[in-house]
Amino acid sequence: MRLGHRPERDKRITTHVGLVARAFGAEEMILAGRDERLVSGLEDVVHRWGGEFRVRSVGSWRGEARRWKEAGGRIVHLTMYGEPISEKMDEIRSSGDLMVVVGAEKVPAEIYEMADWNVGVGNQPHSEVAALAVFMDRLWEGEELAREFSGKIEVVPSPRYKTVIERPEGEGG
Amino acid sequence: MRLGHRPERDKRITTHVGLVARAFGAEEMILAGRDERLVSGLEDVVHRWGGEFRVRSVGSWRGEARRWKEAGGRIVHLTMYGEPISEKMDEIRSSGDLMVVVGAEKVPAEIYEMADWNVGVGNQPHSEVAALAVFMDRLWEGEELAREFSGKIEVVPSPRYKTVIERPEGEGG
Repeated sequence: MRLGHRPERDKRITTHVGLVARAFGAEEMILAGRDERLVSGLEDVVHRWGGEFRVRSVGSWRGEARRWKEAGGRIVHLTMYGEPISEKMDEIRSSGDLMVVVGAEKVPAEIYEMADWNVGVGNQPHSEVAALAVFMDRLWEGEELAREFSGKIEVVPSPRYKTVIERPEGEGG
Repeated sequence: MRLGHRPERDKRITTHVGLVARAFGAEEMILAGRDERLVSGLEDVVHRWGGEFRVRSVGSWRGEARRWKEAGGRIVHLTMYGEPISEKMDEIRSSGDLMVVVGAEKVPAEIYEMADWNVGVGNQPHSEVAALAVFMDRLWEGEELAREFSGKIEVVPSPRYKTVIERPEGEGG
């Protein structure tokens, strides 16, 4: 779940958060706040590149977080003020369904209370995009990067060239 | 080295690239293109949060890359079209001084030729901020997050609160 999105200022950062969530194995992105253009931009990536990723824009992050916890899910909030990721990862990895919360510059104090873990990907200022990526890379222990997305477009890894397969409509995943 | 920066459109993404480079242990960021405001914003972070990180804005990325290679350095270009990071990391880690190149949406074809490695942090579209962070996290095997920056400001990791130490001018690193 992405908090604190300001449509004009944050559109590219929030888009990167969404792309990272998808590419690193999340099932869904919840965007706190309304931004239909951003949602449809991400949906367009899913349409072309494949996978089952969903994007949902919601009015109240509190309602989402509360329902998630009532249903038995856990919440990890990524913040530079939190405990070291390396110390908490084993516990987090074995805890079942997980909602990962990333904020923008300011987040409501309440999320620190609602989260089961407040963890920092380091304690230096950097980027919610980076924090999410490193968190998920460590959560899945690198296996997320080998996932198949079965999209209409697919990259063939190459040491030197851009090699892309484009499947005609109807054949892709 | 950050390529393809467009001052208005990319200012926040490029700032995140710089913050990630610093927080994950790079010595310097080279920004291809002029953007004095962005450079001074990053320098201000170094001033307050510590460390030895430098930021340089240059006119020609080619000149920088060429001089780097002539001096014996190696170049790794992060691109979604590249070979899997997991297959190349051992070789890269043992290769000495490294320049990591990240682009924006379009990068000059030439960089694919100049790079010693073109590697992908996955082959899905996501974010140069994420790619850089995961690359460096794997390069240093997580040790980068435990580095001391000895800044005027420092976070005390906490499970629940924002705890920050601010040292008066002159006492900080």
